[in-house]
Amino acid sequence: MDKKPLSGIRVLDLTQFLSGPFCTLTLADLGAEVIKVERPHMGDSTRTDIPTKDGTSAMYISCNRGKKSVVLDLKAPAHKELFLRLAAECDVVVENFKPGTMQRLGLSYETLREIRPDLIYLAISGYGQTGPYRSRGALDIAIQAMSGFMSITGEKDGKPIKSGASLADVVAGLYGVISVLSAVIWRGQTGKGQYIDVSMLDAMVGSVMQNAIGRYSLSGVVPHPQGNRHPASAPFQEFSTRDGSLVVCCPTNAQFKSLMEGLGHLEVYEDPMFHDTEERYANKNALSDVLSPIIAEWSTQEMAEMMEKRGLSFGEINTVDAVAKNVQLQARDMIIEVEEAHAGRFTTAGFPVKMECAPTQKLYRAPALGEDTESVLRDLLEMGQEQIDELYMAYRD
Amino acid sequence: MDKKPLSGIRVLDLTQFLSGPFCTLTLADLGAEVIKVERPHMGDSTRTDIPTKDGTSAMYISCNRGKKSVVLDLKAPAHKELFLRLAAECDVVVENFKPGTMQRLGLSYETLREIRPDLIYLAISGYGQTGPYRSRGALDIAIQAMSGFMSITGEKDGKPIKSGASLADVVAGLYGVISVLSAVIWRGQTGKGQYIDVSMLDAMVGSVMQNAIGRYSLSGVVPHPQGNRHPASAPFQEFSTRDGSLVVCCPTNAQFKSLMEGLGHLEVYEDPMFHDTEERYANKNALSDVLSPIIAEWSTQEMAEMMEKRGLSFGEINTVDAVAKNVQLQARDMIIEVEEAHAGRFTTAGFPVKMECAPTQKLYRAPALGEDTESVLRDLLEMGQEQIDELYMAYRD
Repeated sequence: MDKKPLSGIRVLDLTQFLSGPFCTLTLADLGAEVIKVERPHMGDSTRTDIPTKDGTSAMYISCNRGKKSVVLDLKAPAHKELFLRLAAECDVVVENFKPGTMQRLGLSYETLREIRPDLIYLAISGYGQTGPYRSRGALDIAIQAMSGFMSITGEKDGKPIKSGASLADVVAGLYGVISVLSAVIWRGQTGKGQYIDVSMLDAMVGSVMQNAIGRYSLSGVVPHPQGNRHPASAPFQEFSTRDGSLVVCCPTNAQFKSLMEGLGHLEVYEDPMFHDTEERYANKNALSDVLSPIIAEWSTQEMAEMMEKRGLSFGEINTVDAVAKNVQLQARDMIIEVEEAHAGRFTTAGFPVKMECAPTQKLYRAPALGEDTESVLRDLLEMGQEQIDELYMAYRD
Repeated sequence: MDKKPLSGIRVLDLTQFLSGPFCTLTLADLGAEVIKVERPHMGDSTRTDIPTKDGTSAMYISCNRGKKSVVLDLKAPAHKELFLRLAAECDVVVENFKPGTMQRLGLSYETLREIRPDLIYLAISGYGQTGPYRSRGALDIAIQAMSGFMSITGEKDGKPIKSGASLADVVAGLYGVISVLSAVIWRGQTGKGQYIDVSMLDAMVGSVMQNAIGRYSLSGVVPHPQGNRHPASAPFQEFSTRDGSLVVCCPTNAQFKSLMEGLGHLEVYEDPMFHDTEERYANKNALSDVLSPIIAEWSTQEMAEMMEKRGLSFGEINTVDAVAKNVQLQARDMIIEVEEAHAGRFTTAGFPVKMECAPTQKLYRAPALGEDTESVLRDLLEMGQEQIDELYMAYRD
């Protein structure tokens, strides 16, 4: 197998739910060996999130493909000892417990660093390991609310709406990846590990919300939900077609002229109300009223072909079933398969970056709970079968 | 100055708008020297996006802090020659043109690789460099629509709503960072550069949308907007308080009991309609009707204190002005200052990861257009003042 950027990097993964597992999923895609530590019987809480098939959830499998699963009871002294021995063999530890949990377990960074001095330790949390909110419990929706994201998302003059996906979890996970890759580079230069503190709130504010905060700060104007309209350009919104809907965007005058030519209604472009960018934006509601019945006569496919030929910006508003079948995503090998012992094989989304050092893989395996316990203990800690059996006797189902 | 992970890495940055600039912003935060190439007179199109102050936009400054600005006219042969000489001195080239643009300019990866064999070349685009949609123009909202994100975001039974922030741009930018860091590690191992193809659509589908695609694929159920409710848990929604609003989440029975104790209405928990997780979810609308008048008597602050003391999950629904003043973000040094020659100094959001190798910086500078042209040409290409003057004579304002 070809060498990937993180080949040879071993990650001990204590995370569950989404932020941490999404981070270590990407580390696995980049070649790391990820050993996911799960508690006896239950494992990661998301294993039973609906929808499930034969007891295992789509969420668990999608987000934990390509990892190993090792069962440890971190509250039992003998298993805590196992954890410390495993940590000594790993380059990276990732956890997304509530701050203070690892200290209470006796597994703090300070303890782990003693047995593995160049350890890279990533802690992902809702609000971070410091500051007045550090002990607050956090779920994705709470962070979407706190970060201001909800206050700018929704219908114009409507109430705040959260993202339909767990955005703060995913963005924090991506910063987790960025921080581990950076720490691996830095360790190569200095020989030193480090403690990394990623918070979901910081991650949202420093990325998705950065522009809104800068704009507010410069102008003093507090932004509110704008629906699907653009703050300075029209048309820039969704339209219903004969058989679906799509968004249409014309940021420049030339693009609007081309759109109206394509629609066979150049007289709309020639109307002084809509003839330049500023007029169009000032009269955006009137423009929407004029365009809606025109576009309603076209099918989504016809609109897409016409706009594509003219190099205009648009997007079909796809439902998730259409995304899974989309020809572009198929052509890019983004819709891949994953297999798990209980749920069998189904499709999910792959690693998005196309690069030589991380080639596309079209079939992955996700681990059943504890699937790799014996092999990891045998291979990494050189333990015998008898010793392993004794350590897990109390946990047999 | 302390060494950062990308100290010594020089990035030639041809990007404008958001996806590319956000990527190179993060590379700069990690220590890279980012030389932003801007066209004469106009520069990056976002320099004039409203709101502006003395002609420079909040968006440009927030997203381009810590970079150098060099003016080049890539259509003029003498400047194209300058670009090639600069590329020879750089480790990374980043561009977010429509696919095919660099080829048309005579500056393709193949050309650049000849003069810099270990070059890391990152192309960010809407749909990617391959596949049937590769030549489609793409804006953030089009990708939010295409990726399925809009189809799962919005009021329950309402129409699809886009994120109020340019989500697809930011997520693609983060994958750009991940890919460049990976390529730097891989170059260290193999001596080889590479071509990297990141698309906004792939980035959204492989991260934010991954869970929805996996769930759909396993269950066959197409997801639609759910408002702010959770698909399996209640209460998990926003409530109005006496003076604002907040989201309240109780994924477990114990948390719901604690909430009702804190609110002084344990009888709601004892009601058989709401006594366990499944009943509560089945009767979630009735539960919302019961809780709304109770919570409406509390202030947001009182609710926050009560829930925090009990370790419950909640989040105030902050507007952007509240985010900029938030005590937790202040304590984490996430609200920082940026200074530009024309707009002066204002606040924006900083780099979210707290780690030793990328220490927090509280004041940054963003470049005026071409601010670093002379120093870069002098230092990197050893050009004299006369030569520089001649190359830029035609572009004096």
